[in-house]
Amino acid sequence: MRPEVENEAPVTAKRKHLIIMASHPDDLAAARTRIVSAYDPCLLEQAGHRLAALLANHLAKAERSEGAVLPWTDPQDAIRRAAALLQNRGAQIQGESESAPVTERFAALAQLMLDQGLNLHDPRYIGHQVPAPVPLAGLFDAIGSVTNQVMAVYEMGPWATAAEQALVGELGTAIGWEPGSFAGLVTHGGSLANLTALLTARNVALGNVWESGVSRQGPPPALLAHADAHYSVARSAGILGLGSRSIVRVGLDERGRMDPAQLDDELANLRGHGQPVVAVVACACATPTGAFDPLEDIAEVCRRHAVWLHVDAAHGGAAVLSPRHRHLLTGLEKADSVVWDAHKMLFVPSLCAFVLYRDRRHRFEAFRQDAPYLFDPAAPGLAEYDSGMKTVECTKRAAAFGLWGVWSLFGRELFADMVDVTFALGRTFYEKLSAADDFEPLHEPQCNIVAFRHLPDELRRASAEQIGAFQLELRRRLIESGEFYIVPFKKDGVGALRVTIINPLTTPSHLDDLMSALRRQGRALLREKFQA
Amino acid sequence: MRPEVENEAPVTAKRKHLIIMASHPDDLAAARTRIVSAYDPCLLEQAGHRLAALLANHLAKAERSEGAVLPWTDPQDAIRRAAALLQNRGAQIQGESESAPVTERFAALAQLMLDQGLNLHDPRYIGHQVPAPVPLAGLFDAIGSVTNQVMAVYEMGPWATAAEQALVGELGTAIGWEPGSFAGLVTHGGSLANLTALLTARNVALGNVWESGVSRQGPPPALLAHADAHYSVARSAGILGLGSRSIVRVGLDERGRMDPAQLDDELANLRGHGQPVVAVVACACATPTGAFDPLEDIAEVCRRHAVWLHVDAAHGGAAVLSPRHRHLLTGLEKADSVVWDAHKMLFVPSLCAFVLYRDRRHRFEAFRQDAPYLFDPAAPGLAEYDSGMKTVECTKRAAAFGLWGVWSLFGRELFADMVDVTFALGRTFYEKLSAADDFEPLHEPQCNIVAFRHLPDELRRASAEQIGAFQLELRRRLIESGEFYIVPFKKDGVGALRVTIINPLTTPSHLDDLMSALRRQGRALLREKFQA
Repeated sequence: MRPEVENEAPVTAKRKHLIIMASHPDDLAAARTRIVSAYDPCLLEQAGHRLAALLANHLAKAERSEGAVLPWTDPQDAIRRAAALLQNRGAQIQGESESAPVTERFAALAQLMLDQGLNLHDPRYIGHQVPAPVPLAGLFDAIGSVTNQVMAVYEMGPWATAAEQALVGELGTAIGWEPGSFAGLVTHGGSLANLTALLTARNVALGNVWESGVSRQGPPPALLAHADAHYSVARSAGILGLGSRSIVRVGLDERGRMDPAQLDDELANLRGHGQPVVAVVACACATPTGAFDPLEDIAEVCRRHAVWLHVDAAHGGAAVLSPRHRHLLTGLEKADSVVWDAHKMLFVPSLCAFVLYRDRRHRFEAFRQDAPYLFDPAAPGLAEYDSGMKTVECTKRAAAFGLWGVWSLFGRELFADMVDVTFALGRTFYEKLSAADDFEPLHEPQCNIVAFRHLPDELRRASAEQIGAFQLELRRRLIESGEFYIVPFKKDGVGALRVTIINPLTTPSHLDDLMSALRRQGRALLREKFQA
Repeated sequence: MRPEVENEAPVTAKRKHLIIMASHPDDLAAARTRIVSAYDPCLLEQAGHRLAALLANHLAKAERSEGAVLPWTDPQDAIRRAAALLQNRGAQIQGESESAPVTERFAALAQLMLDQGLNLHDPRYIGHQVPAPVPLAGLFDAIGSVTNQVMAVYEMGPWATAAEQALVGELGTAIGWEPGSFAGLVTHGGSLANLTALLTARNVALGNVWESGVSRQGPPPALLAHADAHYSVARSAGILGLGSRSIVRVGLDERGRMDPAQLDDELANLRGHGQPVVAVVACACATPTGAFDPLEDIAEVCRRHAVWLHVDAAHGGAAVLSPRHRHLLTGLEKADSVVWDAHKMLFVPSLCAFVLYRDRRHRFEAFRQDAPYLFDPAAPGLAEYDSGMKTVECTKRAAAFGLWGVWSLFGRELFADMVDVTFALGRTFYEKLSAADDFEPLHEPQCNIVAFRHLPDELRRASAEQIGAFQLELRRRLIESGEFYIVPFKKDGVGALRVTIINPLTTPSHLDDLMSALRRQGRALLREKFQA
């Protein structure tokens, strides 16, 4: 190919296998011009200013509860609309044409994306374990996105690596470990974090499984887990070649916490059958109702049986930062591995999940392998800082920028504040439900997760099945109305309702309004369906 | 706990197990005030405007090659600095104090993060397969971050789901599949994408492996892969319980492409031993030198043996959008699964990797399991749009916002432009290397990846080991100087150099400058070390 740009030395065909490809100098000059326009720093600046105004306006409206929490759209309609915009350069929205200035079309697309999203900053959003994040965290993350700071090797994202490892240090120390004795990493979500930690546990427990596969001889390995552990734990068993049936679900006490005595029995039983144990998975807290396992006692059982203790503290880990609530995590420091999602109760955007190993010697056990073209023999000491050795991800985004920025700006006290306020609201909501004749909380909450049912008089004599169906239809009606966002739940196979109060701007009066809205929507639903 | 906010109904203790916790109304009022300040929309607006200016200024400097490509810092020093800023609320930088306005401290932290990062937009960055992204893609991603749009269930990110599925539709159609016949998803990186596709292949090939684990009877399963497949393929075998030794590396032709005849022999051999085959992994293109496998012939061999064909098109998939280069991917439409990283040659920030299944019936095979509290029996049709059924991630960020936005704004032609310009530069660099007496390209490039060695006269009689060590030390010296960013490589165990021209602002004259810089740094290195 001929050079299409000036100032270039003429090419000498030195090798006979050199094939001169057909050249299209004009085509590529035009392409280059289009590219330079798209990469124009002035365009970035103009679009950035527009975005700052749009985001702030959107946030203000959401915080004031203007508009719907969820602007319900049928998914097929939304997909068709997104596809149409792809196909004609976004020229359909708001009367814009393809010839409108790029900044105008950018702003119109951005506004559409904001309008079509779920408004987590509306205090009436109290849904899944996904927070209304500290808004500036998203701006810190944007530094990583615009400049594309990544890891795998230290060189590719020096500050991404530094921020992540500094945070690993803070979180491990907060758990109670000695600086220098532990290790950790950030990965893309709690499910991947659980998978990574359990992969490490599998490799430690089962000898040469990495190289040779799950052993084809001897009794099959088992993975013990809290009976209500997050679905990613059973999934991990399926992924890791152990089989989802290798899970032994350990029974719970009346408050939904793993029972150490039952764990002890299960481990003794497995030992009797000669089955190797990959790990015990405890929860802090468990997903359904936010129950914190008695970690101190569980750790003691695991120590006696010499098995790996993994604690899924994706949601509850943040409580160690609150002097008021850290007692819930007593014993966490005895875990072999811990998962802690910053994109839950540290209130940063998804995804930023930490895997922490008590003993830093385990940090390279997940992947017993190297990638010769990544790691540089000319500087072997740097491999310690190459995240690719420790995470499923090869290229990995600077996922901890948001947390590092917010922590540096506001201090760790802000996280304690948010834990305290939202956990207190869980208690407040429980008290309100308990005090009302037509609501029933399903458990006494330990944090900001509360499961409950609405039981209007008309349902007093209904079957369990009818009561459950009513809860789920009531929720769907409520969220599609845009008034509140809460989530469905089941207890003992019967439908129920559940909130996670994970927007720190929610106040007790919003909880009163939720109960009123459920009553109102419930009456309409009863009229239409359940009394037909 | 007593309510700490006005307008609240008194709590009646209806249930005897109700425990009134100690209340700290003053503490929580103060906490709430601090939280409201951190969530202030005005703060977001001010910080957003500051960030727009800082990012644009940084981009302009990088594009003009002001300053170092890589501001080299020892990792331990960087981690100590990041930790110190966490511990004192970022009050050390630029003479700021903790009492400085939050916006000022935000701007100082942001500037530090920019200053300490790798400058991928500098045209002298031609390193790993990680692009200088279209800057506005980072702003579109920021919409998802600030508002925390996620998936798992459709409701949590309606537009995130719509954008992702619209893009799946465009990419699958570009591959050559019929609309409605295929399916796909976005996940966090090519490694996780390969893992997901191979998990699907494993589950399809090995019957009840998900539930029962890798079978303990019969001959062990095998996974066939291009001999130079990305390390995530062998890793997947380790993770999935097959064992990294289950990989059968299929031999390559003289240009580094999988040889269909050798594949045929290997498959016949495995069949002779009764070994089940999980999948064949072909590359488009392979990581080391960017070689594109002959997919049409490989697909025919796989069809005859009735085995799953997975194509890792993480880097090269984008070539289907270029009329000039799509011939490299002839046969891709016959693959059972394809991985295509938008965060490589579609020039968006990390991470946005697509997994595409030719037959949409395979979309739920990776995880044969449900998560009862996620999926709503009151609206069963919506599960089709719940990403958690298809991805390792439960909560998943809106990873496709950047791509959707850039595609909608500039049209798909921009991606063809970037493929064409960067692939042409690969060719140009090869010709320059070939024409120079003191450089040796190690292969004729098919795309924008070029491996080579610098061979000054002084090394003509050196051993292979010395030549290799020289390349790696030369690279380290070059990147730490901040002049260019390129990556290390090995061919036949001997060190070499490698570029991926994945910044579309790079021009041929930058490639001349790279060769000059290598000569200059090489002379200094020879003086200091290799002639001692």
